[in-house]
This record gives sequence, structure tokens and C-alpha cells, in this order.
Amino acid sequence: MYTLYDYLPSGNGYKVRLVLKNLMLPYVLHELDITEGASRTLEFLAKNPNGRIPLLEVPGHGFLAESHAIISFLASGSALVPDAPFERARMWQWMCFEQYNLEPNIGTARFWLHSLHRTPEALGTALTEKHAKGHDALKVLEQGLAGRRFLVGERYSLADIALYAYTHVAPQAAMPLDAYPAIRAWIGRIEAEPRWEPITAR
Amino acid sequence: MYTLYDYLPSGNGYKVRLVLKNLMLPYVLHELDITEGASRTLEFLAKNPNGRIPLLEVPGHGFLAESHAIISFLASGSALVPDAPFERARMWQWMCFEQYNLEPNIGTARFWLHSLHRTPEALGTALTEKHAKGHDALKVLEQGLAGRRFLVGERYSLADIALYAYTHVAPQAAMPLDAYPAIRAWIGRIEAEPRWEPITAR
Repeated sequence: MYTLYDYLPSGNGYKVRLVLKNLMLPYVLHELDITEGASRTLEFLAKNPNGRIPLLEVPGHGFLAESHAIISFLASGSALVPDAPFERARMWQWMCFEQYNLEPNIGTARFWLHSLHRTPEALGTALTEKHAKGHDALKVLEQGLAGRRFLVGERYSLADIALYAYTHVAPQAAMPLDAYPAIRAWIGRIEAEPRWEPITAR
Repeated sequence: MYTLYDYLPSGNGYKVRLVLKNLMLPYVLHELDITEGASRTLEFLAKNPNGRIPLLEVPGHGFLAESHAIISFLASGSALVPDAPFERARMWQWMCFEQYNLEPNIGTARFWLHSLHRTPEALGTALTEKHAKGHDALKVLEQGLAGRRFLVGERYSLADIALYAYTHVAPQAAMPLDAYPAIRAWIGRIEAEPRWEPITAR
């Protein structure tokens, strides 16, 4: 059985948990409090030298890091990954965009405010910059969703799960989604999917 | 035939050019000077709303962005992508690591110094932070290469191409590689691969 090392408020971890749940794959959850340095202990660094969760232990193979590597491994051959090569590439395009443009801004701002309980006043321009770049990413996402039900091939895929994870909690990063009607409608569709569960559900 | 929109000094673009060359795929190169805003014109934003190169035009399908989405599309089914599911996931783990931990630090520091010709004095702590995080990434890469010829399955794969692109030009970001013997040996092996070419080769 898989073992998942995770921190429940993590959007990156949530992607993995949503995929495991969607595919009804049983797993053992090993919770780590990353705000207390639990992913930087010598014991954990021996499992993942990059010191980050989520981390999946795959029996017979070892440890796999990076949320998108994990979910593509778990969902390979399932309905969550398009069969057509160009659609699969488009799925990866959105997932790469998420890790480069969306997560480092919205995810980091949310981590500062929501997990570490820092104040906007203390964060100052560091937060302002994350908000500006985060809204740039949301504008690209809004445009990508215009006239579509889901990001790729009109079907729920890993791309939706990967971009939903931090987008739906953007308000916890003090980034309201009022200006993004296509994003809000898409969030509603994802939350109506079978086997969806909230971010910190066990 | 493919059309590649690219800026020759770009490490992200270089990944795509190395894969096209390795697989002997013919393409038209459309060069853009991103230091002059050529990827942020209305004409280019209509092709890629995220305003970035490399961008691949795929006849019959449209435009594909994000270097790793592009190279995995081009190399699908080739010897550059491992057949075994866990090895393929490990390849993606390294590629995701590159986009999150390596490229935003080494690539950005190099862009400031080498493409925009800014000085370390003018950049100040912004550069110091990029250097610190960049060296953290290089340490993880050095450890990952210990006792290995290539990153995954002892064979040259997309993971090697993706991580080599910015690592081999780290000295242009004022980050010498002297402290990383495994990385330097691996760079030598990659540059001995058939159909390797230098970053700004046409």
C-alpha cells in the first residue's frame, strides 16, 4: 500500500489526496507539521533530500517527490489523463504553469498568512509582489477557462486538480476571486465531481 | 513542420532545441528578443497568453507552451523517455524540481547578469538570495547524481536535458560549479552525447 507523507493544509499535498480519492486507491497518511520543520529533519531528508512534502512511498520502488510527478504516476492510464498526445501535452502545459506562475505566488502568500500567521503589515512589499504576480496568473487561468467546462478536452483531468488546489484557497492568501467569473464557475464544477473532498479532509 | 518561437540564450528554449536535434525533427526557428519585450506584444500574447518562450506551433493542433510540456510531447515514445512507469515518474520529479527550485534561481540570476547586463552591486540582496537558493538546488542535484551516470535509469533522458540546460551555464549567473564534481562529470557526459550542440547554436 502507498504511504503519503503530507501536511493537510498543503495544496500540493491536496492534489495527491484528491487523485488517490478519485481513483479509490488506499493509502496510509503520515502527517508532518512543516511549520515546525518536520520536513527538514535528518530522518525526512533521507527520504527526500529536497525536504518537501508531499512525498509518496511506492512499495518496491522507493520515494517519489513533487506533486505533479506523483499524480501523473498514480493516474497514468486513468480517465484523469487524456489519451490524445496533444491533449496530454496541454495538461502538462497547465501543470507546469501552475508550479511556475501560480503556486509560488498564491501558495506562498497563503502559507505566510494562513499557516505561519504573519500579518500583511509585517510582510510588506514581499506580499504585494506575490499578489501582483498571483493575479497575473489568475488572469491567464481565467482566459484559459473562457468558454470551457474544464482546462483540457472538456473533461476533468489532472490539470483541473493541479490548478484548483491553490486557486480555490486564494482568498486565504488575501486574494479574492470576485473578478474571475470563469474561475469561480469552474471551482463549482470541480467541487461537484464525484469523490471530491475538502482540502483538510482525512 | 513545427515552428519554434524562441530566444537563443534561453535555457528553457535550449531544452526544446536539444530534443528536436536529438530526435532529428525538422523545424522553423522564429527568434524573438525577449529583452526587448518581443514575447509581450499583442501579437505574441495571442499565441501564448502567458507571454513566454519557448512556444511550439504544432500543425493541426495549435500552440504549446512550457518547455517541459513541449519536450515531453516531442519525445513521447522515444528513447529519451523511460518506458517503466516509476522511472518515468522519477524523470518528472527531476523536471518539476528544475522548474521550481533550479530555474527560478539560477536561470533568473543568469538572465539579470548575462542577458540584461545588470551588475551584482545594483542587484544586491535579490542576487544574494537567488545564489543561496540556487546553491541549495545544486546540492540536491549533486546528491542525486552521486554514483550515477544519468539522473534516471542510467540512461540519458529528458531529465538530464531539462536539468543540464541551466546548470551548465550557472557560471554565467556568477555561480561556479567547482564544489560539484558529480555535476561537472555529468555535464561532460551530456556534452559527449550524439547530436549535442551548444546553447546558442542555430
